[in-house]
This record gives sequence, structure tokens and C-alpha cells, in this order.
Amino acid sequence: METGILQVVGIGPGSYEMMTIQCVKALENCDCIIGYEVYTNLVKEHFPQKEFKSTSMRKEEGRCRLAVEEASKGKSVALICSGDCGVYGMAGLIYEIAAEYESSSGRKIQISIIPGITAALSGGAVLGAPLIHDFCVISLSDLMTPWEKIEKRLEAAASADFCAVLYNPMSHKRIDYLFKACKIFLKNRSENQPCAYVRNIGREGEEYKILSLKELAESELDMFCTVFIGNSQTRILEINGEKKLVTPRGYVFETRHSS
Amino acid sequence: METGILQVVGIGPGSYEMMTIQCVKALENCDCIIGYEVYTNLVKEHFPQKEFKSTSMRKEEGRCRLAVEEASKGKSVALICSGDCGVYGMAGLIYEIAAEYESSSGRKIQISIIPGITAALSGGAVLGAPLIHDFCVISLSDLMTPWEKIEKRLEAAASADFCAVLYNPMSHKRIDYLFKACKIFLKNRSENQPCAYVRNIGREGEEYKILSLKELAESELDMFCTVFIGNSQTRILEINGEKKLVTPRGYVFETRHSS
Repeated sequence: METGILQVVGIGPGSYEMMTIQCVKALENCDCIIGYEVYTNLVKEHFPQKEFKSTSMRKEEGRCRLAVEEASKGKSVALICSGDCGVYGMAGLIYEIAAEYESSSGRKIQISIIPGITAALSGGAVLGAPLIHDFCVISLSDLMTPWEKIEKRLEAAASADFCAVLYNPMSHKRIDYLFKACKIFLKNRSENQPCAYVRNIGREGEEYKILSLKELAESELDMFCTVFIGNSQTRILEINGEKKLVTPRGYVFETRHSS
Repeated sequence: METGILQVVGIGPGSYEMMTIQCVKALENCDCIIGYEVYTNLVKEHFPQKEFKSTSMRKEEGRCRLAVEEASKGKSVALICSGDCGVYGMAGLIYEIAAEYESSSGRKIQISIIPGITAALSGGAVLGAPLIHDFCVISLSDLMTPWEKIEKRLEAAASADFCAVLYNPMSHKRIDYLFKACKIFLKNRSENQPCAYVRNIGREGEEYKILSLKELAESELDMFCTVFIGNSQTRILEINGEKKLVTPRGYVFETRHSS
């Protein structure tokens, strides 16, 4: 029996509008949609005819194994992740599990990766244009990465004047991690360094706040927030009565090819 | 007279499939699509009824001024960028020019930013899953950034074990920049560090190559390429007969919430 196609699909922040055409087609044409239950619930209303299988939050490995298993039966499977499946998503784990499956079963599995809008991009769009120049994406979660390594990356980002996007800035167990991260940036940046956070990007209750690095260090956020720290050139501009976070490309009125 | 809405729209790598629903609606509903002629040509076949205005490659400022001017006449304008308009795109410049317009005319202009799939994400999906963990995006173009600053960022990325995506890796005038960048990484990484490049992402002639850091240093690329350098844990896996570049999330079979 031929195996089915396994598509790993980034659905973006959650709204239908922010899915790509490719994502919508993958979900329309598959036999079965698998994901963390919060995301399958987000998607269900748009694809009510589909078979859904969901697992709870931390069951990533189980979710990936289920996807490989369903595809091995000949089904066309869409494994969904929020944001981009290639950024802290399941695209990596699915390759590892599929490689294991291939070597144990001798059968081959066809995988395709459909990228989505990750929070750095969707949050950046809400804020204005914070990431116009070189930037880093760093997760403050130390569940699978030693804090020393995260700290080293924060120091590198701060000292080399990167714009930085911090994923998973805070949780109940990691109440002081954002404070620690800001302290590292404060060694290299001024207290007034323009920063921001966005909560519930592309979902109900979306909100953002532009604030200084000092204020950010004192903020209490949650796991629904994404944090942005500008570079030394990032400014706050007011347009149409709203404050926006804008990083120039190293020029104001010079001209250059955009890529 | 009321000004129109100015939407700055990331169209992704170029194919219709990789646009978001939001992007398609913005282009369908606007009065006028403005962009660099290569991108307006990519988009034209899908929105043949629209008014198009294009400018040549380096005329970014002129393109932004044109967009503000057309919106100020009451038109609904879509200013398109390839990839994400917030990553080396025109979202930043449009805010700067709009702020100038507001202060000189006393009129307000309504801007919205529609994010798109940038080359780090679309190229990552072609390669497999290279960016699963913390990563940096760095442009090697020194047209508007001193090379010393770029070098400092490359050193930071290399020493803090980031995955790195290099935009604009090479051009006729910057024939040795990729070599220089690889030399910086070679100070901190092994010669066998898994790397890759993708050419013409999401367009005709798309191709990729997975290679070692040493081989990358010796490669001759062009401005249609995006370069990926893995971190110390990035591996090459073979799935369904194809080599893929995969970075684990710091675990193989542990479980964790994806974001």
C-alpha cells in the first residue's frame, strides 16, 4: 500500500485571513487534520467537513507519531501548527519521526512543509515596522534549552545591535525571565530603547503596547505575548493618531532595492 | 477630501499560492497596485483589472511617495513588496514618508501592514526544517549598513550558536562577501557545519542545495539565493530519497507545546 501525503502546515496566528492560499488548499484537500486542540478548534469552523484528531498541549511527539501513522495508512494528512511550522513548530520533529519510520518499516513517506506567518512577522505588522533590518528570534523557554545558552544568545543580540523578537517571554514558572532578558539588553542599550509587546496576535483580544526597555523590564506578560526590542535606530512614530514602532533600513530617504 | 487607505502588502516569494487570504483581498479590493516592476509583473496575471504603477529597482523612496500621493487623492492603494513588507521591505520607509506628509499637509493617512512569507520561512520550508530553534536574519548588503556592523552581527550569530539566514548573499559588486561571512562562522563552527542555499524560492527554477560550511564558502551564488547556516545541532536527514536540513528543538523525543 502506498503511504499518503503528510503536509505540515503553518496556519499563521489563527485567523482565516492570515492563512496562505496553500494552507487553505491543504486543509480543504486532506483527509484528516491533526493538531493541538486549541488550533484544531480555531480551524474547525472553516473546514467543518474534515476529520479532526487533536491532542493536548505538550503531546508533540504523540501528535507527530499519529500524523505519520495516519499517513502510513494511505490518508492525506495535514498536521497543523500555529504561526510557521518551521519556527518552534513541528516540522523538525516530523522529519525525525519519519526518518525513524522509514528505517523501521522500509516504506517511504512523502512530506511537504507549508510555511505560515510566524509571530515575529504578524506581531511586527501590528506594531508598524520594527524588523525592517537584521533581527533575531529567541525563545525564553528553558524547557529544552539551558538558560545559559539563551543568555548567551540574548547577549549576542544585544551587543551586535540586532532587533530582537522574544517568544515565550513569560509563564507561571518563568516569572522573572523577561526581566533577566531585559537586564542583559540594558547593559548594551539605553533605558529608553523603544520596545513593544503584542498580545493575542490575529485573534480576539489583540492588543499592543509600545514602551521603553526600562518599562518592558517591569512588565508582567504572559504566554500569549510576543516581545519586540528594537535596535539603536528604532524610533516611535505617530501616524493617524497611533504610535508605531519603526526601524529604518539604515537610511531615511536613500533609495534601494527591497527584497 | 478624505485620504484613501494605504496598505503595504507582503506578497510572499511570488507565487499566488503563497499569498495570504488577506493579501489577495487587499489586491482585489484596492484601486491601484504599486510596486517594483518585477513584482507588479508577478501579480498582474491574478489581478488583471487593476490599475498598476511600477517603478524600477532602486526607486524605493519614489515608490513610497507615489503610494502616499495616490492615497492622498482618496484612492485605496496597495504597495507590494516581495516576501514580508516588514523584513527589508518598505513598511518602515512608508511610515517615515507618511509622518512627513502628515506634518506638512495636516492631513492624516490610514496605513495598514499585511505581512507575508519572508524568504527565511519559504526557503526553510523548501529545505525541511532548518529554523526550528532560535535564529538570526542578516543581510550581507552593505549599501546602507557599514560592513563592520554586518561583521559584528555575523560574529554574534556564529558564537552564540544561532541558526542564521543570510539575505543578499552576493552580487556582482560584492563577490567575496559570502566567503567573508563563512570565514567568520568557521572560527566558531566545524567545516562540516550543515548549510544550504535556496534559489528562486516559490518561482520558476526553484532549486536548493545542502552543503557543508566549507563548501558554502567556496560557492558562487547570486542575488536570487537565500543562504542558511544551521546551528551546532542541525543535521542532514534523508526522507523519501531527498536530503533535508533539520534542526531539532533541543530534544528528539521529548514533548513540548509548540508556539
